[in-house]
Amino acid sequence: MIFKDNNKQADELRKKLKETGVFLLNLMSSPGAGKTTTLGRTIEALKDEIKIGVMEADIDSDVDAHTIAGYGAKVIQLHTGGMCHLDAGMTEDGINELGTEGLDLVILENVGNLVCPAEFDTGAVKNAMILSVPEGHDKPLKYPLMFQVCDVVLVNKIDVLPYFDFNMEKCIEYVRMRNPKAQVIPICARTGEGMEQWITWLKEETAVWKK
Amino acid sequence: MIFKDNNKQADELRKKLKETGVFLLNLMSSPGAGKTTTLGRTIEALKDEIKIGVMEADIDSDVDAHTIAGYGAKVIQLHTGGMCHLDAGMTEDGINELGTEGLDLVILENVGNLVCPAEFDTGAVKNAMILSVPEGHDKPLKYPLMFQVCDVVLVNKIDVLPYFDFNMEKCIEYVRMRNPKAQVIPICARTGEGMEQWITWLKEETAVWKK
Repeated sequence: MIFKDNNKQADELRKKLKETGVFLLNLMSSPGAGKTTTLGRTIEALKDEIKIGVMEADIDSDVDAHTIAGYGAKVIQLHTGGMCHLDAGMTEDGINELGTEGLDLVILENVGNLVCPAEFDTGAVKNAMILSVPEGHDKPLKYPLMFQVCDVVLVNKIDVLPYFDFNMEKCIEYVRMRNPKAQVIPICARTGEGMEQWITWLKEETAVWKK
Repeated sequence: MIFKDNNKQADELRKKLKETGVFLLNLMSSPGAGKTTTLGRTIEALKDEIKIGVMEADIDSDVDAHTIAGYGAKVIQLHTGGMCHLDAGMTEDGINELGTEGLDLVILENVGNLVCPAEFDTGAVKNAMILSVPEGHDKPLKYPLMFQVCDVVLVNKIDVLPYFDFNMEKCIEYVRMRNPKAQVIPICARTGEGMEQWITWLKEETAVWKK
């Protein structure tokens, strides 16, 4: 019942976003996988072409919002009040608070959690997640739903591949088991390696959504 | 209401465990922080002195249960059926399935999640969590409750400290902000570095509980 109501609300939010031509991306990951660093790099790469807004969802603290504001994006902080995820209602409240006038793209940095955020449609047009190398290539086996709902899986921190038993081929195989259509893009958000493919994808999706 | 019922059930489980002299440890962390590797090392170090049982909680898959069985501990797999945490009822069912006769210590490997598992008292005697170096030292700021409820914080993967911007002093400071009594123990479960302090703590707590 809760899920059904949420799905309806999410569909309505997507419809509104379509009318205003604003692309909403829901970015998810484990704690510490590199959401904020990836977001910072993404803003840097796109800010001259695309107007970006960011909603930083955190249980507590506003460390990330301050970091992101430093990159020059319009940013608001959403506190979930202990909640482990965002639903469509909370996302819509965030969108209203942020104000989307003049924006092309809004990125929602979800709570760091591979379980609950995957269960709630936020109303985003697309879902992306970050799996970091230190977490291991077996994560799609253990957190199936997260990988099922994501259109893109960024495999971050590839600069530390030599220090971890991470098998990229196995990772891609396991992601595809969960979701044959998911794009897997290896990146290092810290150094910028591999970011072009991700930036291109995001730019194209944002443009297509406006049509 | 749900929390109140759960707390009551957790207290009752602890009482039963006290009567039978079985120490239950709830081990939590983010996905990929090293719960299973740490558990394997812990069993290796203790198995000649202490009889150990393990409950592996996973949303899906039984990869970890197979790994742990290889270390020679009595192990059962608990599937949460999509749930993001274990409550006291699920833990008690697990304890009954495992059977505690002859065991001194049962370790519950909780779902990889820094949010929801912290909200539910499982009935464990003590809580421990693993924070891994690649996740960053700011995690106690972002996931306050998890650090509040843990008696021990193992900081794992210290072998890769040179490759990450991880400040151990800041980490300890932030953990203490949340929980002045928490012990912080830096370890590398892969190499065994720093494990003695953890093993000693666990051995002492198990012995004290029997008295």
